[in-house]
Amino acid sequence: MKHKENGNTKQKIYETAKRLYIEHGYFNISNKRLSEESGINQGLITYYFKSKKNIALAVLTEDYYILSGYLKYFMTPEDDPLMYIVTFMNVTFQIRKHDPKARRFISDVMQEDLLEEFAFVNQKEEYLKLLKKNSSTSENPETQLKLVLATVYGTQRTIQRLINESMELSYDEYFRYMIEILLFALHLPDKSDMVDTLIHKSDQATKQLFKTHPHLLNESDYLYKK
Amino acid sequence: MKHKENGNTKQKIYETAKRLYIEHGYFNISNKRLSEESGINQGLITYYFKSKKNIALAVLTEDYYILSGYLKYFMTPEDDPLMYIVTFMNVTFQIRKHDPKARRFISDVMQEDLLEEFAFVNQKEEYLKLLKKNSSTSENPETQLKLVLATVYGTQRTIQRLINESMELSYDEYFRYMIEILLFALHLPDKSDMVDTLIHKSDQATKQLFKTHPHLLNESDYLYKK
Repeated sequence: MKHKENGNTKQKIYETAKRLYIEHGYFNISNKRLSEESGINQGLITYYFKSKKNIALAVLTEDYYILSGYLKYFMTPEDDPLMYIVTFMNVTFQIRKHDPKARRFISDVMQEDLLEEFAFVNQKEEYLKLLKKNSSTSENPETQLKLVLATVYGTQRTIQRLINESMELSYDEYFRYMIEILLFALHLPDKSDMVDTLIHKSDQATKQLFKTHPHLLNESDYLYKK
Repeated sequence: MKHKENGNTKQKIYETAKRLYIEHGYFNISNKRLSEESGINQGLITYYFKSKKNIALAVLTEDYYILSGYLKYFMTPEDDPLMYIVTFMNVTFQIRKHDPKARRFISDVMQEDLLEEFAFVNQKEEYLKLLKKNSSTSENPETQLKLVLATVYGTQRTIQRLINESMELSYDEYFRYMIEILLFALHLPDKSDMVDTLIHKSDQATKQLFKTHPHLLNESDYLYKK
């Protein structure tokens, strides 16, 4: 019984935080506000999650599992880990483009360096497969993986910030550049026809996904309740 | 007379901040502490600099002009802007490697995204020359420059953080990777013999610089007084 109550408390903190972070902005929601809105005292929030970052990481993870649950009907990471990673990126870029609140949330958590932390845990297997196939260096795989993620997400974080500050770059250009930098970081040849193929095939899957499941274009329709 | 007093006040804030930020860490020094140490009230600090970031940017700029003043005896940005940019990076990597307080300061200001802001102003000419020579795209040069700096410094920022958190990567490996990513971002062919040449020649100039001016290896010997 105690255990169940604890679970409910933790869940309630999480669900409230998720909604508030996305609806009102991650940086605008203090633990004090979260405590007021959830009716759970601040000590328990710290007890269960230690820091806001851990709640945001849980949101990223849940989002990833929901989206990849749908995506798996179109492709699997086992068949082609590179296409899978690119398509997932394509999906999230479309959501960012379509849903301003999703864009704000992802921009905020990128400022906190959470995307690479998220990917290091949740996309580790796919990246390691790619590195194994393409790497010629003797560095240990964990260090290689960290370098790849530092490159992809360090750059993405900064570009997103500049776009938010009004740099003129379309989402198509941004997405293409992210693929180019991914290929660079993975030591894959950066041939423009390979980039074109990745864009074209991931576009097809992404369009199909949103055509079949249009509610995935808004986080408030699949990730939390307003 | 009034003007001179103002100049002295601003200068005193700046000199005190520079010493404190490097000696004790940028994130550890509040404006309150800066006010106590300089004997100048917090209102005036805000009046002259608006934010801590602007003081840190001024420190980066002064550091750059001191170092490039020495470097110009070995090479000029006009002759070979790429070699100049790489050699300046080499010099700062050596200082970072040698002087733990310099390393902490640069890590801190990278967290604040100040290096790309610094480079956008102070190395603009060199970068634009390189982009003009090598670019085939029709994007406007300012956007291209921002993308290059976002790539180089976004990645560098994240790698530096991971190194500080104990990722195993030698400064030589880190420096080589930074050159590779610079060539990628500038659309230059990433040939390993080109990377080797850039490392070799910039090493020679850097060694010569520190041999002739060993005091440049410690920021407390050329940038501020303890």
